[in-house]
Amino acid sequence: MNKGSLFIISGPSGSGKDTVLKEVFKLLPDVAFSVSTITRPMRVGEVEGEKYNFVSKEKFLSMLENDELLEFNEYIGNFYGTPRKPVDKALAEGRDMILEVDVNGAFKVKEKMKDAVSIFIMPPSFTELKRRLSSRGTDDEAVINKRMLEALREIENAVNYDYIVVNDNILAAAQDVEHIILSSRLKTARKKEIINEVLEKC
Amino acid sequence: MNKGSLFIISGPSGSGKDTVLKEVFKLLPDVAFSVSTITRPMRVGEVEGEKYNFVSKEKFLSMLENDELLEFNEYIGNFYGTPRKPVDKALAEGRDMILEVDVNGAFKVKEKMKDAVSIFIMPPSFTELKRRLSSRGTDDEAVINKRMLEALREIENAVNYDYIVVNDNILAAAQDVEHIILSSRLKTARKKEIINEVLEKC
Repeated sequence: MNKGSLFIISGPSGSGKDTVLKEVFKLLPDVAFSVSTITRPMRVGEVEGEKYNFVSKEKFLSMLENDELLEFNEYIGNFYGTPRKPVDKALAEGRDMILEVDVNGAFKVKEKMKDAVSIFIMPPSFTELKRRLSSRGTDDEAVINKRMLEALREIENAVNYDYIVVNDNILAAAQDVEHIILSSRLKTARKKEIINEVLEKC
Repeated sequence: MNKGSLFIISGPSGSGKDTVLKEVFKLLPDVAFSVSTITRPMRVGEVEGEKYNFVSKEKFLSMLENDELLEFNEYIGNFYGTPRKPVDKALAEGRDMILEVDVNGAFKVKEKMKDAVSIFIMPPSFTELKRRLSSRGTDDEAVINKRMLEALREIENAVNYDYIVVNDNILAAAQDVEHIILSSRLKTARKKEIINEVLEKC
């Protein structure tokens, strides 16, 4: 069977990445989502196994020791990581999988999985980025500036991605991601079966 | 301005390549078509500049001498070639261009233009290929077998292409080509402007 592909998707605050991805899963319901393994406590409204698997720090560290994580990081005393097994399983079954991860994580995963396709979701302009980051309940200029700097630092890494999707319109951006995923399915490495099928009978 | 991309498209007799391409140009009317330069006489119904530019052998040979052709070949005493200038012009203007060429031509063009994206149009099966090649007005088994062998020889080269599009259904195959072209427009190399636009204002 032809293997599936891994799509590494990143984007700064203000890129609208989460909303775009929701739309992508509506367009392509057969694509799997990589559930992160994390150690922070579950929050109200969160469901085990939906976006995160909640584990103890001991469990996380033993996964790390057994090389079961494609990437991980630590944030305010908690660990966040991408388990390797579900990715391997989905791809072996011929399914495509989306992995949402920050620029550092994307770099680490791409190092381990050279065939992964990386996509960076961008805000359409500096002005629109500022507008989106400003309209989040606080008007404190310092907080907004800090968010802007963080976002711009991520955007500086966009050049290292395979594809750039500009999110000016959610549906159009989701369709862009769809084109990338559907075209990946047409890559020759994933079409060996049909070539053999047509040739083997001669 | 971001440059356009060149799409090299090949496919054997029986792949339905021409019909698929007609549909692609309906879906993406902004994509340019590379007009071949040829020395054979114009046939009834052909229009200068539509699919071919008709030139004298002297003119063709002088183009060849001046390195104005990306590839060429000779068939029953006539020359067929791909002029380089219209390709360079389209890409420089940010337009995508489709170049329809056989496997040998594809190989030569890809050598000169590393960024070109190559697509091979495939029949869906050995049986269907045979059916398509048999229903062309002649029932001579030897003629059909010769066509089959030529088609299969081309299909053996499909592995060297970037993408494989299986033409089981014309519209679906055209949409596959569309996904490949639209996703190419999202490649980071073609999105430098937006990255700079968002970043340059900080």
